[in-house]
Formats: sequence, structure tokens, C-alpha cells
Amino acid sequence: MKIVIINGPNLNLLGKRDIEVYGSQSFEDYLDGLKALLPCEILYFQSNVEGEIINKLQEVEADGIILNAGGYTHTSVAIRDCIDAILTPVVEVHISNIAARESFRHDSLISTVCAGCIFGFGLRGYELAINYFVNNR
Amino acid sequence: MKIVIINGPNLNLLGKRDIEVYGSQSFEDYLDGLKALLPCEILYFQSNVEGEIINKLQEVEADGIILNAGGYTHTSVAIRDCIDAILTPVVEVHISNIAARESFRHDSLISTVCAGCIFGFGLRGYELAINYFVNNR
Amino acid sequence: MKIVIINGPNLNLLGKRDIEVYGSQSFEDYLDGLKALLPCEILYFQSNVEGEIINKLQEVEADGIILNAGGYTHTSVAIRDCIDAILTPVVEVHISNIAARESFRHDSLISTVCAGCIFGFGLRGYELAINYFVNNR
Amino acid sequence: MKIVIINGPNLNLLGKRDIEVYGSQSFEDYLDGLKALLPCEILYFQSNVEGEIINKLQEVEADGIILNAGGYTHTSVAIRDCIDAILTPVVEVHISNIAARESFRHDSLISTVCAGCIFGFGLRGYELAINYFVNNR
Amino acid sequence: MKIVIINGPNLNLLGKRDIEVYGSQSFEDYLDGLKALLPCEILYFQSNVEGEIINKLQEVEADGIILNAGGYTHTSVAIRDCIDAILTPVVEVHISNIAARESFRHDSLISTVCAGCIFGFGLRGYELAINYFVNNR
Amino acid sequence: MKIVIINGPNLNLLGKRDIEVYGSQSFEDYLDGLKALLPCEILYFQSNVEGEIINKLQEVEADGIILNAGGYTHTSVAIRDCIDAILTPVVEVHISNIAARESFRHDSLISTVCAGCIFGFGLRGYELAINYFVNNR
Amino acid sequence: MKIVIINGPNLNLLGKRDIEVYGSQSFEDYLDGLKALLPCEILYFQSNVEGEIINKLQEVEADGIILNAGGYTHTSVAIRDCIDAILTPVVEVHISNIAARESFRHDSLISTVCAGCIFGFGLRGYELAINYFVNNR
Amino acid sequence: MKIVIINGPNLNLLGKRDIEVYGSQSFEDYLDGLKALLPCEILYFQSNVEGEIINKLQEVEADGIILNAGGYTHTSVAIRDCIDAILTPVVEVHISNIAARESFRHDSLISTVCAGCIFGFGLRGYELAINYFVNNR
Amino acid sequence: MKIVIINGPNLNLLGKRDIEVYGSQSFEDYLDGLKALLPCEILYFQSNVEGEIINKLQEVEADGIILNAGGYTHTSVAIRDCIDAILTPVVEVHISNIAARESFRHDSLISTVCAGCIFGFGLRGYELAINYFVNNR
Amino acid sequence: MKIVIINGPNLNLLGKRDIEVYGSQSFEDYLDGLKALLPCEILYFQSNVEGEIINKLQEVEADGIILNAGGYTHTSVAIRDCIDAILTPVVEVHISNIAARESFRHDSLISTVCAGCIFGFGLRGYELAINYFVNNR
Amino acid sequence: MKIVIINGPNLNLLGKRDIEVYGSQSFEDYLDGLKALLPCEILYFQSNVEGEIINKLQEVEADGIILNAGGYTHTSVAIRDCIDAILTPVVEVHISNIAARESFRHDSLISTVCAGCIFGFGLRGYELAINYFVNNR
Amino acid sequence: MKIVIINGPNLNLLGKRDIEVYGSQSFEDYLDGLKALLPCEILYFQSNVEGEIINKLQEVEADGIILNAGGYTHTSVAIRDCIDAILTPVVEVHISNIAARESFRHDSLISTVCAGCIFGFGLRGYELAINYFVNNR
Repeated sequence: MKIVIINGPNLNLLGKRDIEVYGSQSFEDYLDGLKALLPCEILYFQSNVEGEIINKLQEVEADGIILNAGGYTHTSVAIRDCIDAILTPVVEVHISNIAARESFRHDSLISTVCAGCIFGFGLRGYELAINYFVNNR
Repeated sequence: MKIVIINGPNLNLLGKRDIEVYGSQSFEDYLDGLKALLPCEILYFQSNVEGEIINKLQEVEADGIILNAGGYTHTSVAIRDCIDAILTPVVEVHISNIAARESFRHDSLISTVCAGCIFGFGLRGYELAINYFVNNR
Repeated sequence: MKIVIINGPNLNLLGKRDIEVYGSQSFEDYLDGLKALLPCEILYFQSNVEGEIINKLQEVEADGIILNAGGYTHTSVAIRDCIDAILTPVVEVHISNIAARESFRHDSLISTVCAGCIFGFGLRGYELAINYFVNNR
Repeated sequence: MKIVIINGPNLNLLGKRDIEVYGSQSFEDYLDGLKALLPCEILYFQSNVEGEIINKLQEVEADGIILNAGGYTHTSVAIRDCIDAILTPVVEVHISNIAARESFRHDSLISTVCAGCIFGFGLRGYELAINYFVNNR
Repeated sequence: MKIVIINGPNLNLLGKRDIEVYGSQSFEDYLDGLKALLPCEILYFQSNVEGEIINKLQEVEADGIILNAGGYTHTSVAIRDCIDAILTPVVEVHISNIAARESFRHDSLISTVCAGCIFGFGLRGYELAINYFVNNR
Repeated sequence: MKIVIINGPNLNLLGKRDIEVYGSQSFEDYLDGLKALLPCEILYFQSNVEGEIINKLQEVEADGIILNAGGYTHTSVAIRDCIDAILTPVVEVHISNIAARESFRHDSLISTVCAGCIFGFGLRGYELAINYFVNNR
Repeated sequence: MKIVIINGPNLNLLGKRDIEVYGSQSFEDYLDGLKALLPCEILYFQSNVEGEIINKLQEVEADGIILNAGGYTHTSVAIRDCIDAILTPVVEVHISNIAARESFRHDSLISTVCAGCIFGFGLRGYELAINYFVNNR
Repeated sequence: MKIVIINGPNLNLLGKRDIEVYGSQSFEDYLDGLKALLPCEILYFQSNVEGEIINKLQEVEADGIILNAGGYTHTSVAIRDCIDAILTPVVEVHISNIAARESFRHDSLISTVCAGCIFGFGLRGYELAINYFVNNR
Repeated sequence: MKIVIINGPNLNLLGKRDIEVYGSQSFEDYLDGLKALLPCEILYFQSNVEGEIINKLQEVEADGIILNAGGYTHTSVAIRDCIDAILTPVVEVHISNIAARESFRHDSLISTVCAGCIFGFGLRGYELAINYFVNNR
Repeated sequence: MKIVIINGPNLNLLGKRDIEVYGSQSFEDYLDGLKALLPCEILYFQSNVEGEIINKLQEVEADGIILNAGGYTHTSVAIRDCIDAILTPVVEVHISNIAARESFRHDSLISTVCAGCIFGFGLRGYELAINYFVNNR
Repeated sequence: MKIVIINGPNLNLLGKRDIEVYGSQSFEDYLDGLKALLPCEILYFQSNVEGEIINKLQEVEADGIILNAGGYTHTSVAIRDCIDAILTPVVEVHISNIAARESFRHDSLISTVCAGCIFGFGLRGYELAINYFVNNR
Repeated sequence: MKIVIINGPNLNLLGKRDIEVYGSQSFEDYLDGLKALLPCEILYFQSNVEGEIINKLQEVEADGIILNAGGYTHTSVAIRDCIDAILTPVVEVHISNIAARESFRHDSLISTVCAGCIFGFGLRGYELAINYFVNNR
């Protein structure tokens, strides 16, 4: 089983900024620790460019995609259309609970075309999403 | 570890209505199958009465609560206030993806006071929520 | 033929309050007069509790339900979901014309899942609804 | 007793269009069948022109008017003002349940000035309206 | 000097309905009394049909038009476009103060293309409008 | 007969600013020309201070008040309440057609408590308002 | 004189939760201290169930009711209708200032049918309400 | 091949008004020039009356209809329902780009039931629409 | 203890206008009767000018301020900012229940920065507010 | 004559996804067939990156641009500003009728700065747009 | 060169309130320090009264005005109209970033008629504005 | 001291388009003239790609950033999140006054996370921003 994690804008700053909130671990380090425990192949891609995220979503060949589109979550009809067009199921993950933040973050354009949504569990949300794909039956 | 699942209005009809969609398995049967696999105690409560759900949320002594508030999700300030007041962490689960349904289901009053949200994975959402509590570290 | 009338909150006050508007006849008395004229069995249930109305809607075995959900008409996603899930057809009745009252009464969450709606005819709306079921062909 | 039915735009297409939905019976045929059963005089008028409907509402001398204003229901302040000005009571009928259709059909400008509203019962709604006038006591 | 008064839907009912409010004088009678006092030719046209009002606005050859578009005031982009296209100046008159009535009467689509607006003075508003044209300097 | 004209903020700039639009005549000069022609006493008051306009409205003893509240038209609940409380009838005048300007000028808080409204006739609106009071019968 | 205090959902948690904010005194203890000082009979009722609050409002025989409807304040048309129907005057109390909290708490459906409203004085608001009834003259 | 062009209110003024914008050619003259070049029969109908447009839409027997509903575009649920009911495909044309004009012109009620929309090309939009029908394959 | 009552626009008309509603007693007379009963010093200030109310709020040296800002309640960010800046606690009082009046009176800009709010008790609201300060413990 | 077609995000998937809807022909193949018939040079560019579309719009030297901005249509102020700044006329094309899809697709930010808009004709919309440029006179 | 600074309501409290935020320096002291460094004459005016600010704006004879309208920024159509009418250029300054505060502070009615806006730089914003006028070329 | 100016989409067209408005000077030329006068190092970056602006914001090592995000100002949650995450202070500059343009330009998503905002001063806004950083004390 092969799973691709796609992180959107500013998620490359994890571990470098807001350390008191998110800790000093980068997403790559977090992922390395996770990979050792999981019976599946996990690929990782991050970009700050909306169109590159679309390119990657189109190219991916995998059993599942985990997408944290960051700030594009609330504004990108283009990413939404892409998820709607591809066949690979996509799970939407957000580290924080978007419903508890500013009002312009309350609506996700992407949710309606995803297989499911996991919000607010911190980095553990990625594990839950992987768990969903791995135990899919 | 002890986890309490609270289901809101009409979720007692699972397995009796919309069988072609949800299958013919009741939530109790689904839960029995699940319990055999899980290293934790799971209690289950269902009510159609908003206030009884609040009563139960107040009374529960557990390591975690999984709440699917059904139709009250979108209208109950009272359930929200209750979750905000109690100390036990609550995970919000919805079987369907509420963002992909009618507009009056898009906003959850409850999400902002929950530890996390899991939407759209069908009954498997409950497993992911249990997984969150069991593997909490 | 068996028809169940379910009245929601405060409709137990008919005949006791606002007598100059609604007359001094209680709903039970009105119904007794009606039963003598009608070729069908009519059962009556009233509750001020939203969840009890849902319980009753789920339990009823009848050819038709006449529902006046009172104030819950405008706020209860849970009653709406219940009507949507059960198989017995439901006719929505309101004594007054909700479109001619305060703006928060203009929208009925329930109408979209009912077989039909009858608003503004006073108590005679119940007769029209019974007439609908009895003459159903 | 004399009742006038006024149908608005496109209702002359009943029986000619959407036959799989509405059947192949025109409104005139439906009315002929109905007249044989009813102890009252029924006149029928249809127009696609908003102003002609107003003209007719002003001219009518009857015990009651049954109005299905079609698409003008949601946009015509002029028809509303007319109903408000005349003395003959008007019952509003819609074949479909307007609350269950597109959002621009949810509000009826006309409801607030009608004696009552009957929505969603198909052609049978006209019978219920006639029933209201005939049994008026 | 020649002035044309155009009245919209239901204004032909003046003097026949709501006599306690508007008096028992028809608009024609009111106008006859007025004509004797005024040093100008006054023509009068009334229609309940939106398109006929447009036809008349296009055909009129006069020094000024006084328009009370009744219920079409709030809904007719077509009348607005017509006033905008013709060269004769149009004064908008309403018998009642539309700002003090239901919210759907607060906005006039027509005002922005009129030479001026006179609201709320009863039938005397027509006199003020005539006064405007006659004393135009 | 005694009439008081009250002008609100910035109307003291008439004749000094935007001369190409409003001409080089001050409101006082305009009024002097007018007084010679009119069979009534006219007093004039202008202030840029909202509360002083209220003070003046309360103190005035006259047969009628003509009020151009300028920018306070759209924001002053206090002026509205004052007009509602006093007994002297108030006619609202605006030089320009407020419906044809920026959207924040479309609603007048004051209109609903005035005897009538005259918009868009330039300075001639004041004459029409005086005409209304003088010919009141 | 007899006064009934009705508290809505989650107010039974006073003294048990958020102790640093509200203190460790339960509402019952607070009330006991108060009763000693007051020249009137005070009864107390609390429920988390919307319909039970309606039942109690209907049953009460007293000189006045003090209602803190908690989260139902903002969502319950049914409680509003009940207050409107009964004859006993109701004073609305909220411990916190609802205008200073989340936007969904800004509107109270109940205020418009109450004799008066007291917001934001903490538990002392109940004393002010009692004071109102006791000194009523 | 037979195509019917239906123009709505005020389009009969083309060539008579706003000559500097639209030129001095009437729509009939424009059409005559066009007919010589096109391998199809073109019929033309114009009306200022909403209901007559509906009548014509219902009566037409053709391979295609080109409709410029003018001001009714934004307000006529009745025309929309008519297009939805008939079988002849309708192409919506507007001379100007409605998105670039006043906000009340941004939404077309008609677009959703048309085969396609052509906005902003001036009179050439009619040619493009004819081109669509003629080259239909 | 020293308390200052500040009344906003039009409250100087109490006892002079709307006597059938508010009685013929001026606020000053009401206050004189009250002062005899109260164990505290009460100063009174009224102004129709928004800025003078701000001036007074800034200058006051007292244990508490009771403010009825009248029509400025709903529009004055400046008064709000002033209350927020000063240290003296302010209680907001309204004679009528603003929630039960026109929609533009429903929101108070001031409530969120006041110590508490008392609405709808008539003149007795001032007594309750004084009671709050005097019994403050 | 030289025309440039610019397609936005996900339009590279034509012929690869949703084959039952759009057929199995890629846009390039469709274009090749078209080129053979047309007396003009046609260049084609596609990108999923918003900024690259802007780059291309700035660089293009042509007689006309045909732009289908896909999901960026509804969100890109930047593309709009670019079209507004360049001199080459741009025709906006959409394969589907955006007015008939989800509400977030109803508004095009781009339409107001385009020479014209063609919506809902499928791939044939591109031909109509080319037709517009080629026959431009 | 002569520049006038006009500060609106509550800005006279600088240095007296919120000292931990704004420091203990009054605006006058701040200005004295500034004047020593600047090659221009600076006059200063502060008022809590909206109309006095308008009076001052009208009277000023200077090369530039710097206006911080405080709470009137968001509500005063009258100040806006004044700035629009006078010839002296006005620069709008706010100490805090109004976009980052409560939603009722997000819109400035004044910005659209000012030469430029400077928000969020604390007291240094005044310096930047003076810099703009002094270096104007 | 080192300052980085980042310009967003279409600002590379300065001096090439709209020359009558902005002059024929490119931003680079303008900057060259400026650099000679300023005691600091200024770097310049421009991109039409949203994500490249984010990349640059993350990479920059400087004492201050001046950002004109062009059309992304109103739509980019991603740029906002980036500014919020980095430590270098950002000043937002717009050449025109965005409050005076189309309504979709009125809100800046970016303002709330910037150190300050400078709007409407033309190219001189950049100088004011540099001035802010250079004189920072």
C-alpha cells in the first residue's frame, strides 16, 4: 500500500516557527518516526504554489492521498476541481480545528469532494488518516 | 481505558432505515464487533432528547467521549456549552460529510469546543476516534 | 385507516390561553367533535419535548401523520431528519399563516420532507389534512 | 356557492409537458372530472400575463378564489397588493412543495395576504382548497 | 404644457377599496377637480400590466411624466430601463411613504433614473409633481 | 403660517464649494429670493452638530419643519426619535436623489417618521415642501 | 409573594466547574443565603431539557418568574411562545453579558416577550430581578 | 433550419435611443442585413410584456430560440419556468456584459435553463448564437 | 457613595411627550422622589449631543455611572470607546425593551463594555441600577 | 490573424477523466481537428498555476485571446487585473454553464473586463469565440 | 508649510488611560517633541463632538490636514461629505490597525475621500503623514 | 539596514501600461532614483505567482519587508499565514486607495498581520514605508 501526503503553503515552517506551539520537530522528522511504525509506503510532498499542488494531485499514483491544503483550503476552487476529477481517494487533514479559528477559515471548499475530514488533532491527524487507508476493508 | 459513545437523534434507526445506504447492521451490532478488537471499555448511549444528551455528557466518567450529535449539531448552543464546561475530552464524529450536504448542515456549533473532528468516513469514523483515545500519548 | 395527530410545544394551551383568538375549546374537545364525523381512527399525542416528538414519530404505526411542530418547526433539524427517515407520510399543519408572522417563523425546516403543507386555516387545517389521507387515491 | 380557480404562467402546459411527472391529463380535464363530484360552481382562468391575473382578481365575483400564481408567486408585489385590496378570500395552492425546490422559490410574497396555503399535494391541493370553501362554517 | 400621469397596478381601485383610508373619491374624480385649477394639459393612463406601462412610457409625447408604478416599483428592471432610455423627464410619486412599510417596499428600482421622487403625501403628491413641471424654470 | 427650514452638516458650504454643480448662490441667498414670493414666514437654521439639530427640532414652534439632515440622514437614530416625539409635521428634503448615489446613502432612517419625502429636485425641493405646507387643506 | 427561578441547561454545574470564574458556591447554596434576606417565597427549578422548562413555565403559579434559559435563549422559539402565552410576568436574567460573547449569543429570542432583561451582573442579576418583583408598585 | 429571435422589453428602441452607443440601425434593419448571409430561416418577435414572451416561447415551432429577455432576465421566474418546460433549445444573448453593469443585473434567472449564454459582444452576439444553431453537429 | 445618571438624546422630553405612555412626570421629578429614599448622592446630566455625553463620561468622578444613551446606543462607536477607556463602571439602562422594537435598535454597541445591562423595566430600571451600585459587595 | 487559447487548471485532464461526459478526445486533439478548418493561426497554452497564466497573458502577442480560467475564474483578482491591463481583447469561455452549477461558481471576477463571454456550449464555445475574432469587422 | 492635525473622540485620553499600552506621554507632549524636528508649522485640534470636527475641517486654512476621526471613522457620513467638499488634502491616520480589531471597525467611511491612509504604526503614523506633506513634490 | 520590497501580480507592468495614470517610469527606474537618496540597502522582487511570493517571504533575511501583494491582497489566506509565521516585520503598501475601488478590493486579508498599512499615496507610499523602517526607534 502506498500513501502520498501533500502539504500546502507554510507547512514547511513546522519546527522552525511557533516552536512553543508545534514543538521543534519538522514534518519530515515527524514522518520519519512514523514510517518506522507503519506497514505502508509513505511519500511526502510540500509546496507553497497552488498550481504545483494541483500538478502533484494529478500525477500521483497511490492508494490514497492525505491533503493539508493550508490556506488554499478556503480559497481554491481549482484544487477542489482537481480532487473531484482524480480517482485516488483524498482525506483532508488540518492540524488545528478550523471551526475554532477566524471566520474566513470556517468553510473548506475541499471537504465536499474528499472521502473524509480530520480536523484538530494536531500532527496525530495524519496518523488517523493513514490508519483509515491501511485498515480500509 | 474507558470510552463513552453518545449518539444523538435518529441514530437509533441505523440498520432499520436506509438499509441500502447504511447496511442492515444496527449500531449496537456494529459496536459488538468492534469491542472484540479493542483494548478498552466502550459504553454506549443514545437519545433523541437534547437535554438527556446534556445530562449524559455531565454524568460521564471516562477517558474520552465520542459524540455524534445528529441534527442537534447545527442548532444546540446548550450541548456546546456543556462540552465546554466538562473536563473529559470530546471527539465529534459524523457518519456523512456534513460539508457536502444541505447548507444548514455546514456549520457545527459543537466543533469549536471539541478536541477534534472526524467527518465522512461512515461508521469507520468511530474507530478512528477510538484509535485517537487509545493511542493518546 | 388510522391517522395520528402530533402537536408540538404549547399547543396543549389551546382553549386555556388567548381565548378571544382561538376560542375556549381545547384541542381534545375539538378532536372529539371531529371524530364523530370521520370514517377513520384518529390518535392524538402532544408534547413540549422535542425528543419525545421524535420518539413518537419513530414509533407510530399508521397510514398517515399530521404534525404541527409548533416552535420546533423553525429550529429542529432533528425532527426533519426523523420525518425523512420514517416511511409513514407526514402532513405539516400550522393554525396560523407562518409567512405572515415574525421573520424567524418564515422558514420551516420540516416542509421539505413532508408530503404536503397546510398553513393558516385555523383548526380547520387539521380537517383538510385528514381529508387528504382519507380520500387518498 | 361559486369558486374561481386562477392559474398563472406555464400551468397551461399541464398534460403537454413533463408527462412522466404530471401525467397526460390537462388541467381542464382534471377539472371536468372534479366538477361532477362537487356541489359548487367552479370557474377557471389561466394567463401567462401578470397584469391579466390582477385584472381577473379584481373582476371576480365569487365566494372564494383559488390562486396558483406559478412563477409570479415569488416576484409579484403587484399581485400581492391586489389580493390585499379585494374582499374575496384567496387560498394559495402550489402543486409542488415550494420549500423543497430552488432557494428563489422558498419565499412567497403572496402567502401573507391569503386566507390559507396548501403546498405539495399535487393536483389534489385544488380539491383541498375547494373543500375548505365548501365546508366553510 | 402637457403632462402625462401613469398609474400602475391596483391604483384603479382607489375610491372602491379601503375607502376609510383613501376616501371614496376615484383617481379620475380627483384628477377632474385638479384639472380645473391647473394651467396645463393632463392625460391619464392606468394599467395593471407591466409591459403596457412600458409601452405607454415609450409612446408618450409630453413635457413630463408622473409615474406611480405601484407594486412594480420594487421589482421591474424593465420599467427602469425604459425610463432610462426615454428623453421625457419622469417624476416618481407614491401615495404612502414606502420607507415606512414592509421591507420589500423600501427599495425602488426606479428612483435612480427619475428626475425626482415624492413619497408619502397622499394624493397631494401628484399636485406637487405637477407643480414641479409647471414652475420649471 | 410659519415654516422652519433645518439644514444639516455641510449644507452651509452651498455656493462656496462645487459651484459648477450647485451654482454660486448660497442657501441664504436662495432663501431670500424665495421669501419674496411666498405668503408665509420662513425661518432658517443650519448646524453641523447632530445634537444641535435635535435641540432645534425640540424647540421649534411652527406649522411645519423642512429638514435636510445631510449625512445624518443615514446614521442618526437620535434625530429619528426626535421627529417621532415632536408634534410639528416634518417634511424630509434632499437636493440630490439619494437612491442614485452610494449604497450607504440609500436608506434614510428618518423617512419613516416624516409626513412626506422629496428627493432629487435640487433646491427646488424646498419650494415643493413649502408648497405642501402652504396649500395644506 | 411567590417567585419561581427557572434555570436552563448547564446551570446545574455552577460551583462544580469554572470555579476560578464563578466561585465554588452552587446555585442552591447561593439561593439559601439569599432566601434568609428576602421577604418572599422563592422556588427553584433547573433542567437541561428544553421541553421540561416549557412544562414548568406552564405549570407555575406565582407572582413572577425569573428565567435564565442558558443556551436555549438563542435557539428556542418554543420557550418564547410559551412565555408569550402564559400570564405570569417573566424576567430574563443572564449571568454574563451575552452581547460581549460569541456572535451566536447576541440575539435572545426570549427578550421580546419578557417584562424586562438583566444581563451581565453575575449572580447578582437574580437579586435585582427579585428586587423588581418585590418592590413592584 | 428555422430560428426564432425573441427580444424583450425596450429592445424595440434600438436605433432610436442611445444612438451614439448602439448606432442608428434598428434591430429589424440589422436583421435584414444578416438574413441575406445566412442559410436559415429567421423569425423575429419583440414584446415589452413578460407574459407575451412566455406565450411566444410556448407557441414557437423551431430548431432553436435566441432570447434576449432584457430587464426580465433578472426578475422572471415565470420565463425561466417556461424555458425549462419547452423542448426547443434556447440560447441566451445580451448585447452588453451584464456582469459589468449594476449589481442587480449580475444574476440571470434564465441562464441555468438555457443551452448556452453569450454576453457582451454587442449585436454580434446574435450572429454567434445563429452560428451555434446552424453549425450544430 | 456617588452615582451619576447620564441620559442621552430626547430623554429630556419625558413627561412632555407621549404622556399616555410614560406619564406626565419629568425625569427630574422622578429623580427627586427617588433621591429621598436612597442612601447615596445622585447627580444627573442630560444632553442631545453625542460628544457632550463623551465629555461628561470622561469628566465624571463617581462610584458608578448609569447611562441611557438613547438613539446613540445603536450607532456610537465613540461612546463605546469612551466607556472602554474610563475606569468608572457603567451600567446600561433602557426604559423600553430594545429587543422588542425595530430591528435597528436590537444591537447595542455599548453593551459589550458595560458592567451590566437592564432593559425594559420602564423608569424602574434606574432604581435597579442604583440598587446594584449601592449593594455592591 | 493569430489567436491564443489559454486554459486554466485541470483542463489538461479533458479526455482522460469524466470520459462519459466530455468524450475521450483531449483538448489538443480537438484543437488539431479545428485548426484544419480555420483561416487563422491558433496557439495553445495550459497551466495549473495562476501566476503562469498571468505571465502568459502579459507576454502574448496576438489579435485575440480565448481564456478559460477554470477554477481561478471565481477567485483570481490577479488574473482580472492582468486582463484589465493588457491591450489584447480577451473572450471568456466556459465549457459548462457556470450559472447552473454550485453557487460559488456563479460569479466570475473576470467577465467584467472581457470583450465578451460564452458559457455552456461545451467545446463548441471555443469555436464561437474564434468565429468572433475571425469575423471581427 | 502649515499642517493641521485633527483628533477625534477619546484621543484626549492618550497618556492618561491605557498607559501600559500607549505610554504616559500625552498627544500634546508627543507633538511638542515632534515640532522641534520638523520644518513646518503644525496646529492641533481635538474634539469629542462630531459636528465640531466638521466645523474645524471647513474652517482650516492649511497645506494639509491629518485626521484621526476615532470612533466617528466608521459611522460618520457627515465627516466624509465634509472631506469630500473641502479642497485641502486630508490624510487619514489610525494609531492601531483597524483591520485587526472588531468587525465594526473594519470599514472606514472616510478612506475613500482621503488622499491616503496610514494605519497601525502607533503615534509614528502622524510622522509619516507629516513626512508625506513636507516632501510633497 | 536592509529592506526588501516584494511586489505582487501585474506590478511588473508599471511604466508599460496605463502610462497616462502611472507615468512612463518602471518600478525599477523609480527604485534606482530612490536608492541614491536612502541610507539603506534595498532589494526588489516581483512575481505573478502567489506561491513564489510566499517562498520569498520565507527566505528573506532583512530588517523589514514592504509588500504590495496586488490582487492577492484580497484572496490569499496563504500569504497571510506566511506573514503571520515569519519574524521580519511587514508593511503593506498599495499605490491606490483600495477603499475607493470595487467592493471586492475593500477587504485586505493581509492587513491584520502587518506592522502597518499605507494606502493611496501612489509610488510615494513605498518611500513612507522605507522611512518607517529607517527611522524606527
